Amino acid sequence: MSNCVVAQSGGPSSVINATVAGIIKANQLNPIYDHVYGGLNGIEGILKQNFVDLTRMTEHENLVLRQTPSSALGSCRYKLKRRNVEDFEKIISTMEKFDIETLFYVGGNDSMDTVAALTEYTAANGITGRRFIGCPKTIDNDLMVIDHAPGFASSAKFIATTALQCWQDLHVYPRSRKEVFILETMGRDAGWLAASACLSGIVDVLIVPEVAFDKEVVLERIRDCIEVKAKCFVVISEGAHYEDGTYIAAAEAKNDIFGHAVLGGAGKALEQMILDENVCTRVKVQDLSTAQRCHASEQSQIDVIESFRLGLSAHMRSMDKSFTGKMVCLKRRTDVQEYDVEYFAVDADQVANYVRNFPVEWLLPDFWGITEEAINYMKPLIQGTPAIIMKDGLPEQTIPYYLGGKTIE
Amino acid sequence: MSNCVVAQSGGPSSVINATVAGIIKANQLNPIYDHVYGGLNGIEGILKQNFVDLTRMTEHENLVLRQTPSSALGSCRYKLKRRNVEDFEKIISTMEKFDIETLFYVGGNDSMDTVAALTEYTAANGITGRRFIGCPKTIDNDLMVIDHAPGFASSAKFIATTALQCWQDLHVYPRSRKEVFILETMGRDAGWLAASACLSGIVDVLIVPEVAFDKEVVLERIRDCIEVKAKCFVVISEGAHYEDGTYIAAAEAKNDIFGHAVLGGAGKALEQMILDENVCTRVKVQDLSTAQRCHASEQSQIDVIESFRLGLSAHMRSMDKSFTGKMVCLKRRTDVQEYDVEYFAVDADQVANYVRNFPVEWLLPDFWGITEEAINYMKPLIQGTPAIIMKDGLPEQTIPYYLGGKTIE
Repeated sequence: MSNCVVAQSGGPSSVINATVAGIIKANQLNPIYDHVYGGLNGIEGILKQNFVDLTRMTEHENLVLRQTPSSALGSCRYKLKRRNVEDFEKIISTMEKFDIETLFYVGGNDSMDTVAALTEYTAANGITGRRFIGCPKTIDNDLMVIDHAPGFASSAKFIATTALQCWQDLHVYPRSRKEVFILETMGRDAGWLAASACLSGIVDVLIVPEVAFDKEVVLERIRDCIEVKAKCFVVISEGAHYEDGTYIAAAEAKNDIFGHAVLGGAGKALEQMILDENVCTRVKVQDLSTAQRCHASEQSQIDVIESFRLGLSAHMRSMDKSFTGKMVCLKRRTDVQEYDVEYFAVDADQVANYVRNFPVEWLLPDFWGITEEAINYMKPLIQGTPAIIMKDGLPEQTIPYYLGGKTIE
Repeated sequence: MSNCVVAQSGGPSSVINATVAGIIKANQLNPIYDHVYGGLNGIEGILKQNFVDLTRMTEHENLVLRQTPSSALGSCRYKLKRRNVEDFEKIISTMEKFDIETLFYVGGNDSMDTVAALTEYTAANGITGRRFIGCPKTIDNDLMVIDHAPGFASSAKFIATTALQCWQDLHVYPRSRKEVFILETMGRDAGWLAASACLSGIVDVLIVPEVAFDKEVVLERIRDCIEVKAKCFVVISEGAHYEDGTYIAAAEAKNDIFGHAVLGGAGKALEQMILDENVCTRVKVQDLSTAQRCHASEQSQIDVIESFRLGLSAHMRSMDKSFTGKMVCLKRRTDVQEYDVEYFAVDADQVANYVRNFPVEWLLPDFWGITEEAINYMKPLIQGTPAIIMKDGLPEQTIPYYLGGKTIE
């Protein structure tokens, strides 16, 4: 027999560990690999031969891993470049050295490109017996092909819940007090997370990257709201931008090593416009920041189950020795009334490097929010509350492996 | 028979509505009042005769009210001044008009001053048959006499949980990547909320208002942390200040109508110091802002139960016609090993206008966090997870009464 390794990449989510937990559990149900190794910090862990052995994780450890946010194996932003042949050689030689047949890579579209690139490399060089399988995740929900990305639903649930509860807070002072509340969410290129706040039913103005920010229209909308009901609840994506592409939060934008803009501050920028233009004298901004991707104590149960099962599915499909260069995937069933999904696989290169935007036809005109169709798409995803295992009043969590796990020789 | 009215004041919390729910339920168990009215927006609602009738609330509505954050009856910041005799006359005449015998006032130390002032006024003017009873709340936990303030525990639980999960997120990139995470909490004068983050066990540096901010020591501590383990997790109160009293967030401080400073931005100010002094080049700030006082989907069960029972206790004690000018209170039992409380009453003027700070003897030197004694004090308070009634994947909530409730004539 041989071994497999699982690694995680990209930004954390509330359920990326659930997919790892699924792969580990699948191998306990059907031990087709001698060992399930965890590669620390994504592809960097493979390059540096930095592994932990996850094979005999207990059920309790597995359950705790599922409810632990972030990436217990650590993540990386290291992108495998096709011209860096040494990286590919190093990965293959490491897999040979540790007798690793299959690499499961849990991540977003950059990670699916890694899966595709490694598969191309082995095919082009006649290397056999090394396989690469992608498992999807991203809170941004901007992956192609898949109905929705694991991780999105839990962030959506946290965002919608927080929106609802901040709206309660906004309404605490007398009706006559005029006030604007701005909730800022992540979403550099896609408005899914901001749009998910609309599940709460209380969003007055929604600003997403899919539609250019029109200052005049937005301020007019806020002014009207204040006029009618004294309060206005605004949700804005960090990636909100003007027609010419300039981010509202432009003053604070920096680039990350992939050339993606690191944003933040769209809410603050909008607050300043509201104050400058005398639309309202009271504005509060809540930037959900890191909490929206790691507040796992409020996971969506649907999200946890699907993420776990995508891990199971990836492992089970890897019984087929020709299964490589694929990403396991979710499709919403259309043959039944209730929400249900079916699992399938897609070529990783169909997902790699593309971005799926929030459909503009799901946006109401003039920043009024989203359509019923959009609500109907998202609502089933946030259902269910998993039973969280608590310890001393706080959710029990897996210590990040590089702090606690043993490495193997 | 006569009626009673309940009103809420001060900043919202996750469980202030649970106390109102307790008063309503008590009157259903023992209907000593014909009607339980809700006064909208605190004392302003009494002055403006703005009431809703809560007497026959169903059990389901009661349970939903308990899990709804903020103040369903609305709050106010209106402070009754002893020299404004007309206000007192107006309140008494309103109580007479609506045959209201008892005013239950749920709030913090400003509200207890209102209870005390009204009681003094009736005594001084020989007015009988009008009584004023305070029920404590404040997430700040800075009330005197009471072991801990209702509302604190749920905020503490949210803060500690978020700290733990943000710490997971901080550890996602390779060990070598140096990074500081700053979590900013509320707490203008008292460090209770910031200190509660230490329940997570992951706080490296804690900055509270009780000890003057020493830039040199703090930056040195952060530098040492980064040196040893590449990451540093800092928690800072919005009210952190220098020896001379200047707030770290001074640039952004404004005053509210009580002359209290409205703060925010201590985390951002510290981030700038860390960057300017080259302590670390990566810093992330999470300001918990409004969410920390309204994220009721993660209430502490202990907190909900105690808040509800304080409402029961206030109502039950009001059977005694001499019971006025009092606040219902919690004392931790010392005659048993496990955590338990007993309920008693205290004169409202013993609580009014005082602030209880976080004990400096519970702080470790050089911003290292808090002592075991402090942990032992807080840990029992965050225990238990209430079953939240969900609707379409989100917690079901009571619509603020001024938006949905009928007013009475």
